[in-house]
Amino acid sequence: MNAAIIKGKLTGVGTGPGDPELMTLKAVRAINEADVVAFFCKKGSTGNGRAIVEAHIRPGTIELPLVYPVTIETHKDEADYKNPINDFFDRSAEEIAAYLDAGKNVAVLSEGDPLFYGSYMHLHLRLKDRYQADVIAGVTAMSGCWSMTGLPLVQGDDILSVLPGTLSEEKLAERLAVTDGAVIMKVGRNLPKIRRALASVGKLSGALYVERGTMANGAAERLETRDESPAPYFSIVLVPGWTTRPQGEKK
Amino acid sequence: MNAAIIKGKLTGVGTGPGDPELMTLKAVRAINEADVVAFFCKKGSTGNGRAIVEAHIRPGTIELPLVYPVTIETHKDEADYKNPINDFFDRSAEEIAAYLDAGKNVAVLSEGDPLFYGSYMHLHLRLKDRYQADVIAGVTAMSGCWSMTGLPLVQGDDILSVLPGTLSEEKLAERLAVTDGAVIMKVGRNLPKIRRALASVGKLSGALYVERGTMANGAAERLETRDESPAPYFSIVLVPGWTTRPQGEKK
Ligand SMILES: C[S@@+](CC[C@H](N)C(=O)[O-])C[C@H]1O[C@@H](n2cnc3c(N)ncnc32)[C@H](O)[C@@H]1O
Ligand SMILES: C[S@@+](CC[C@H](N)C(=O)[O-])C[C@H]1O[C@@H](n2cnc3c(N)ncnc32)[C@H](O)[C@@H]1O
Repeated sequence: MNAAIIKGKLTGVGTGPGDPELMTLKAVRAINEADVVAFFCKKGSTGNGRAIVEAHIRPGTIELPLVYPVTIETHKDEADYKNPINDFFDRSAEEIAAYLDAGKNVAVLSEGDPLFYGSYMHLHLRLKDRYQADVIAGVTAMSGCWSMTGLPLVQGDDILSVLPGTLSEEKLAERLAVTDGAVIMKVGRNLPKIRRALASVGKLSGALYVERGTMANGAAERLETRDESPAPYFSIVLVPGWTTRPQGEKK
Repeated sequence: MNAAIIKGKLTGVGTGPGDPELMTLKAVRAINEADVVAFFCKKGSTGNGRAIVEAHIRPGTIELPLVYPVTIETHKDEADYKNPINDFFDRSAEEIAAYLDAGKNVAVLSEGDPLFYGSYMHLHLRLKDRYQADVIAGVTAMSGCWSMTGLPLVQGDDILSVLPGTLSEEKLAERLAVTDGAVIMKVGRNLPKIRRALASVGKLSGALYVERGTMANGAAERLETRDESPAPYFSIVLVPGWTTRPQGEKK
């Protein structure tokens, strides 16, 4: 290896929730300046992050798809998921490291915000001590979704809980009972369970269901009356904290 | 009034946490296209939101400062705060309505994300049924702060709790004990209480303190060793959920 080569810089780039206009100026610049744009995707697809940033990739930029070895629907607690996914992050980190060693700047796309339930953080932790590694914050999916619906989520002394829909019904109900506002991520096949948990604590009627928030085909409706068909990967449930409370009323 | 005038449009514009480059493309466009740019501020100051968007305000744009009647340090549960602040939001909404009635598009700046503990939501709720009212999501302060420090906050099945530092020490400790990751907003004079609450549940050592995150003079340090001087308004505490857990370990 040539000792004179200055190592490249790694940047985790938040792309926002879907609407390409919800990218930050900083994200646009990072993608524009990158030698290599890496992105997670499923086999046979270029991935949503790549689609969001499309307009900002310079011709001649090297593209590095990081193809998940297993479907994201697999439950992460299953033993047959953990090892392949860790190997995958190890391998992906080394692919990126090879470019960084060659002096190339690598931007890794991350939907929403990179360090908020994002895959990028697995690469960040593997590479941050060997290379300069920066993170560009992005608009999260939850912000995109509540803004799209105009639903004020939390205010004043409200507590907001972000709950993965993969939790058990009991755990969901337990946490929903003691919070003001709530956001439930990873809805998908967990939708019926989430609905039962909300109903059991009397919070179903105010809840909104949003799918593909801020994307061209995004939609929102009351969770209570949504049909029982499985939700897509890009879906979320929002439970407002304060709007039901008369303004100024003490808790 | 002239019946032929088409009413203007209201837009709540998330400006992001401080770094002007963390504005979204959509926010830049909204500010650029607005006839009136309104912003909350304290007496004698133009406010932080106004400073963030500075470069994007067209010459000739009408600026509408909405000056808080009381200092934001006042505790919101005090009776002498509630009425003046509600009157202030009523009055501000009517000032904006006058411009909307005159056919002018009004952009209201909101630091971070407008519907996440932001003052804009009080105007939104007062005006959304009378005018077209859109919200442009922004990068939240918490995303800006954890990205600046490179601290992965939550992953997989982690629960994230967002807690206002205005809660009592007991309530803070109670909620910190049962969450994975946590973000504590509204730190300011609550810093010693927050530190005690974290210590009481054994979570002080991993916590980070960030002030003026993503701003030119932003800084981060371990909360445990920060001195006892009061924290500025723009400060936050981050408690990571998963990094302390060996990767892949079951909860
Ligand atoms: C692995 S997490 C990634 C979160 C992302 N890093 C963020 O900042 O919001 C994926 C989950 O985010 C939610 N999500 C992401 N984009 C979404 C969208 N446009 N509309 C609704 N939900 C979305 C879904 O709940 C999905 O299961
Ligand atoms: C009224 S809330 C507004 C939150 C904002 N709408 C958002 O989306 O993050 C104000 C609190 O946000 C936090 N905050 C806002 N900007 C910050 C910054 N640049 N650095 C650290 N904390 C910040 C502080 O905890 C402050 O008390």
